Amino acid sequence: MIVVMKTNCNEEAIEHILTFLHNHGLSGHPSRGVERTIIGVLGAVGPTGTPGSIGGINPSLGETLESLPCVESVLRVSKPYKLASREFHPEDTIVEVPVPCVSEGVVRIGDRDVVMMAGPCTVETEKQLMTTAHAVRKAGAVILRGGAFKPSTSPYGFRGLGEEGLKLLAKARAEFGLAVITEVMTPSDVPMVCDYADILQIGTRNMQNYMLLDEVGRTEKPVLLKRGMSSTIEEWLLAAEYVLAGGNRNVMLCERGIRTYEKMTRNTMDISAIPLIERLSHLPIISDPTQGTGSRDLVMPMSLASIAAGTDGLLVEVHPNPDEALKDGAQSLTFEQFKSLMPRVLAVAKSLGRDLSTPSLRERPHWASSFPTAQCV
Amino acid sequence: MIVVMKTNCNEEAIEHILTFLHNHGLSGHPSRGVERTIIGVLGAVGPTGTPGSIGGINPSLGETLESLPCVESVLRVSKPYKLASREFHPEDTIVEVPVPCVSEGVVRIGDRDVVMMAGPCTVETEKQLMTTAHAVRKAGAVILRGGAFKPSTSPYGFRGLGEEGLKLLAKARAEFGLAVITEVMTPSDVPMVCDYADILQIGTRNMQNYMLLDEVGRTEKPVLLKRGMSSTIEEWLLAAEYVLAGGNRNVMLCERGIRTYEKMTRNTMDISAIPLIERLSHLPIISDPTQGTGSRDLVMPMSLASIAAGTDGLLVEVHPNPDEALKDGAQSLTFEQFKSLMPRVLAVAKSLGRDLSTPSLRERPHWASSFPTAQCV
Amino acid sequence: MIVVMKTNCNEEAIEHILTFLHNHGLSGHPSRGVERTIIGVLGAVGPTGTPGSIGGINPSLGETLESLPCVESVLRVSKPYKLASREFHPEDTIVEVPVPCVSEGVVRIGDRDVVMMAGPCTVETEKQLMTTAHAVRKAGAVILRGGAFKPSTSPYGFRGLGEEGLKLLAKARAEFGLAVITEVMTPSDVPMVCDYADILQIGTRNMQNYMLLDEVGRTEKPVLLKRGMSSTIEEWLLAAEYVLAGGNRNVMLCERGIRTYEKMTRNTMDISAIPLIERLSHLPIISDPTQGTGSRDLVMPMSLASIAAGTDGLLVEVHPNPDEALKDGAQSLTFEQFKSLMPRVLAVAKSLGRDLSTPSLRERPHWASSFPTAQCV
Amino acid sequence: MIVVMKTNCNEEAIEHILTFLHNHGLSGHPSRGVERTIIGVLGAVGPTGTPGSIGGINPSLGETLESLPCVESVLRVSKPYKLASREFHPEDTIVEVPVPCVSEGVVRIGDRDVVMMAGPCTVETEKQLMTTAHAVRKAGAVILRGGAFKPSTSPYGFRGLGEEGLKLLAKARAEFGLAVITEVMTPSDVPMVCDYADILQIGTRNMQNYMLLDEVGRTEKPVLLKRGMSSTIEEWLLAAEYVLAGGNRNVMLCERGIRTYEKMTRNTMDISAIPLIERLSHLPIISDPTQGTGSRDLVMPMSLASIAAGTDGLLVEVHPNPDEALKDGAQSLTFEQFKSLMPRVLAVAKSLGRDLSTPSLRERPHWASSFPTAQCV
Repeated sequence: MIVVMKTNCNEEAIEHILTFLHNHGLSGHPSRGVERTIIGVLGAVGPTGTPGSIGGINPSLGETLESLPCVESVLRVSKPYKLASREFHPEDTIVEVPVPCVSEGVVRIGDRDVVMMAGPCTVETEKQLMTTAHAVRKAGAVILRGGAFKPSTSPYGFRGLGEEGLKLLAKARAEFGLAVITEVMTPSDVPMVCDYADILQIGTRNMQNYMLLDEVGRTEKPVLLKRGMSSTIEEWLLAAEYVLAGGNRNVMLCERGIRTYEKMTRNTMDISAIPLIERLSHLPIISDPTQGTGSRDLVMPMSLASIAAGTDGLLVEVHPNPDEALKDGAQSLTFEQFKSLMPRVLAVAKSLGRDLSTPSLRERPHWASSFPTAQCV
Repeated sequence: MIVVMKTNCNEEAIEHILTFLHNHGLSGHPSRGVERTIIGVLGAVGPTGTPGSIGGINPSLGETLESLPCVESVLRVSKPYKLASREFHPEDTIVEVPVPCVSEGVVRIGDRDVVMMAGPCTVETEKQLMTTAHAVRKAGAVILRGGAFKPSTSPYGFRGLGEEGLKLLAKARAEFGLAVITEVMTPSDVPMVCDYADILQIGTRNMQNYMLLDEVGRTEKPVLLKRGMSSTIEEWLLAAEYVLAGGNRNVMLCERGIRTYEKMTRNTMDISAIPLIERLSHLPIISDPTQGTGSRDLVMPMSLASIAAGTDGLLVEVHPNPDEALKDGAQSLTFEQFKSLMPRVLAVAKSLGRDLSTPSLRERPHWASSFPTAQCV
Repeated sequence: MIVVMKTNCNEEAIEHILTFLHNHGLSGHPSRGVERTIIGVLGAVGPTGTPGSIGGINPSLGETLESLPCVESVLRVSKPYKLASREFHPEDTIVEVPVPCVSEGVVRIGDRDVVMMAGPCTVETEKQLMTTAHAVRKAGAVILRGGAFKPSTSPYGFRGLGEEGLKLLAKARAEFGLAVITEVMTPSDVPMVCDYADILQIGTRNMQNYMLLDEVGRTEKPVLLKRGMSSTIEEWLLAAEYVLAGGNRNVMLCERGIRTYEKMTRNTMDISAIPLIERLSHLPIISDPTQGTGSRDLVMPMSLASIAAGTDGLLVEVHPNPDEALKDGAQSLTFEQFKSLMPRVLAVAKSLGRDLSTPSLRERPHWASSFPTAQCV
Repeated sequence: MIVVMKTNCNEEAIEHILTFLHNHGLSGHPSRGVERTIIGVLGAVGPTGTPGSIGGINPSLGETLESLPCVESVLRVSKPYKLASREFHPEDTIVEVPVPCVSEGVVRIGDRDVVMMAGPCTVETEKQLMTTAHAVRKAGAVILRGGAFKPSTSPYGFRGLGEEGLKLLAKARAEFGLAVITEVMTPSDVPMVCDYADILQIGTRNMQNYMLLDEVGRTEKPVLLKRGMSSTIEEWLLAAEYVLAGGNRNVMLCERGIRTYEKMTRNTMDISAIPLIERLSHLPIISDPTQGTGSRDLVMPMSLASIAAGTDGLLVEVHPNPDEALKDGAQSLTFEQFKSLMPRVLAVAKSLGRDLSTPSLRERPHWASSFPTAQCV
């Protein structure tokens, strides 16, 4: 931190600040300029995780300092997150997710290959889920998305099938060899969702649900942390820091659009967050063009733009019959549309020296044999 | 709902929409214009609370309709909330809170008198809380605020004393006859917080924590629902609808600033939300100029502006020594500042024909004179 | 400016920065900390107005510095505006506007008394303007607003009567003794508008029309500078700095709402800008609750809130028959509504020790005698 | 337009609306539902360009209607722009710009090939401009950008060389065979800038400078209209409509980032605007990743994302020595960076079946080999 004093403040005021800093376990180093004095603040850099401290500095101390007499402003130098930062952890984090249908049995998110996650917004029926799982796997996705617990803006909206939905997801995994990502909404549901899912999704409305972050931090499950709909990149990384500080290092971030004044799209997708996260953090970054735009017609161009900007994966809503969907049908791709998206995703990825994680074509997909109509490639 | 068809769409397309509506239990009434056809949609207006319906209409149906071929746009006519609306409930809701130190023993929020809620951001120590309770009561507040569970943007920030803090709040209530408002952050804490508090506060980050809303909806405690930091007024009323639909009718709304591009204040306080809520809803509206601005110097003018705009109460942070506060010191008023705020609040209220709810002056305030050992009247 | 170096950068990198600063006529003063070095930057503080400099420092130099190797960030210490700042000019600026109908013949904006400016959005007809001038004067306004040149979002919208409208405004001034405020939209119109108006209004879309700011800066007419619809307070003060730097010291600022994600109001009125401007600048601040909300019903509460927050004046749209207005009728008050607003404005002003500038009751309003139906009180 | 009446309003109220519509030259067609009546509004669809009308309907009429008694809301059906809409003009507009250095002598913007526009933010010196023109041409750009008139947030910032800068641009065009794009800031400068430039740029701050739009609408020069920094897509298309309505059909739109709460980038680049404009309008869309992010490091990923999303061209800032730039150095690419950007741009374009417009390789580029004395082919 740097404390900038007002012009013409006297030595007494400077001493007052130095004493204040001392009382908070910090040391101040004044530089006296012609016009004004600035005070560099140094703290005892202790281990992260000390309650009330970050590198020894209480995060709200700056605001208090700023309210002291003779202080013009307080400038923060250090980033408030540490475990999530590339400075602290220069190598990329690669999150490994077990996926039966790929030849290695595992998908590495954050590595060279782009990973496709697709499926319905919400699990509605067995048939809806199974046909979708089949379709997206056939088109090249390796992870199946689907909500069992759904946040609904209205109390009268559909809120998901609950555990029944989780069971259907587990069944689809067994049948098609896809990994499963699904949302968990409240701390007490974490153990149950962990039992069924391969990746825990934290939704945009829960990005700052700290008790939920604490809870998933106590597991080892991969976590996909969606950006809050109006959160800054710094707040988002701080939310990731909660999970990391809890001990779970398998964290992925997901850009899903932010709230702006523009209403022609549901959200404004912040594509620049993709390269920014890559620079600031070692964590994988996923892109959700479905929620990011709210419009089926924009999913294709925004998927391709995300790939071009360097995303590690895409999360796309697909539904067998979007017009009949219980939730968010208007933004879901049809099977046909998803199928036509995939070669373009691959083309752009390849043009930049990347590739796609895809279901293996070499092995017989025995895990798919029991599903009646499913013909696995 | 009104479905606007594209120009020059044929009868077949119109029939397709009518069939779609019929399949969803709705009826469509087309008006064929020269340029285009519009279709009015009517639903079987059933009892609120039917899963998946509001007045019989699935809230996400509109988006699905919008994605059908030949549909230009879908226009929503009805408000998506009902129990929270003034249309449905024309008379003001008045939330009664038991407050020992007022002569009637109860404060009526949403009625003629402005209600002052004040206290520290966070409960830190017994002394801090007791001296603050004393000071704010003496100055004229009737409700004591103070956080025992605190959301902190950083995992390394101070997160409150927990139940210990609740006990101190209960002690302050016993000593000073003030009602107590404090935040509850997660569903499993609701019973415990109910045991100690008179008003449950739902913080801005939890405005769409639906399981928490469900849980407080199952109690009868007064609830103060803060506006989400980037929530629209409609989303805010829908969040209130969750609590109301759960059976708890004692809901108050609290404007606390919204996130905008302007960074000179922490948030941009949306004063116009105060008269808007008054027009749209019967629920009381409280104003939080402390969080709304993040700056101590702005608390006074924004308190007065809130009163002039018609707020039912103010929620103000006060701290015995803001420079030493563990959290948000920079925005808290000193005792002296709070004391000088009160006569101005009263003056503006009176200029508009209102008054302040105040601790009774008719009885000897022995609990004030003999702090810290006094017993509440 | 303060340059924060990256951790562990070597002396060579620091020397590079010092040389860079030297080459730009500045001197750098490094403080070497344990973790990192920070460099205070001092410039030859020269006269304001030197091309490319502010106090000797090129405003975009900071961004360039930030892109140099080994630089973590660059922190700006000084405010980028000077003539508009209270630091530079501690006493309030009071803008004097000649107003025949007040007893002193002049209204002082920025002083104790609140000043009411009212009139139609757009000058439409002589009758419309004269009846409105009469009505607002009778209710207590001293300045007549009315647009002769109107920005219209659509090229097909009404764009005002032009000079014909200015002539009608001058006529209304002659008849009712009110001063006249009207918008000027382009540099070449400034001389003509100056001939007719007492206050030049710069609209929200032109806040950063620098050539227009230059041009009005060359006059001595009072200027009301509306905040750009998404401008920061700093950009707004920098726009005022343009006019002041041109030599015109009669500048007033006008808060008129900012663009946010909330769409229930046309703009979100930033009431906190009123006390903020008071603190940062010596210039008067006016509040426009009509444009600020876009809704007639919100004009009253937001007017009162503005007064309570300390505004120096209000700019309110009034129309004889809002339903028939060519522009922005939905937000204009009727005569009756304006009349009922005034006593409340006065009550709130008085409750805070202020008063209203009002038309004199002591003199015979000879200037009103020639207008057929006008009876001046 | 559709007028939605309040529930339970009587026939008299409906008649009142019908009369109101009739008085404004419109006809109303009521549909009486069980709960409420809705009224479809039809106007005499006349030629565009009639003052005060769009298809016969005054654009502000809706707001006035909304304020009438018994009206719940007014829903707009038609787009308020016409000449800019794809509905009215289904085929793509292709803007042809004469470019000596390409083999056909003309570049077609809006067609299959992506067009690169590059150069310094601001023209500073002959040497700076000529070396940059040389470098960007060599790397594959066909249009040279450079500001002679620069908007500067501060009155003390550098505001460009004026006509001297235009002359240098013309010289660079003569030397290197590149077309020239440069900003025009005020109506009176339009003739002068037309004399030197091939494309007139309207900057973000002037997107709603209607008199400037009128003026460039009276020319036939290609116009690049930057999106206002907080303008909606609809307002942007309405600004284009001004130019088109003036008679100039050579209009291109340019996405350059919008203002949001996120401050880690200067603006939030709205990549989704690219496919949205493609759908809504026939006009070419250009992308400016330099202004869109304000950060050199983000120019590459956002350029590629723009191509993947379908942009017709890129506008990129390049400077021989960004650290010494008078303006916006921190965001400009070096020659080396621009050179390394080009093959990636080409790779992504090709992966999606597109190509780049490039300087001809069939002719001997003597003007490149012999800089600075060479003559353009």
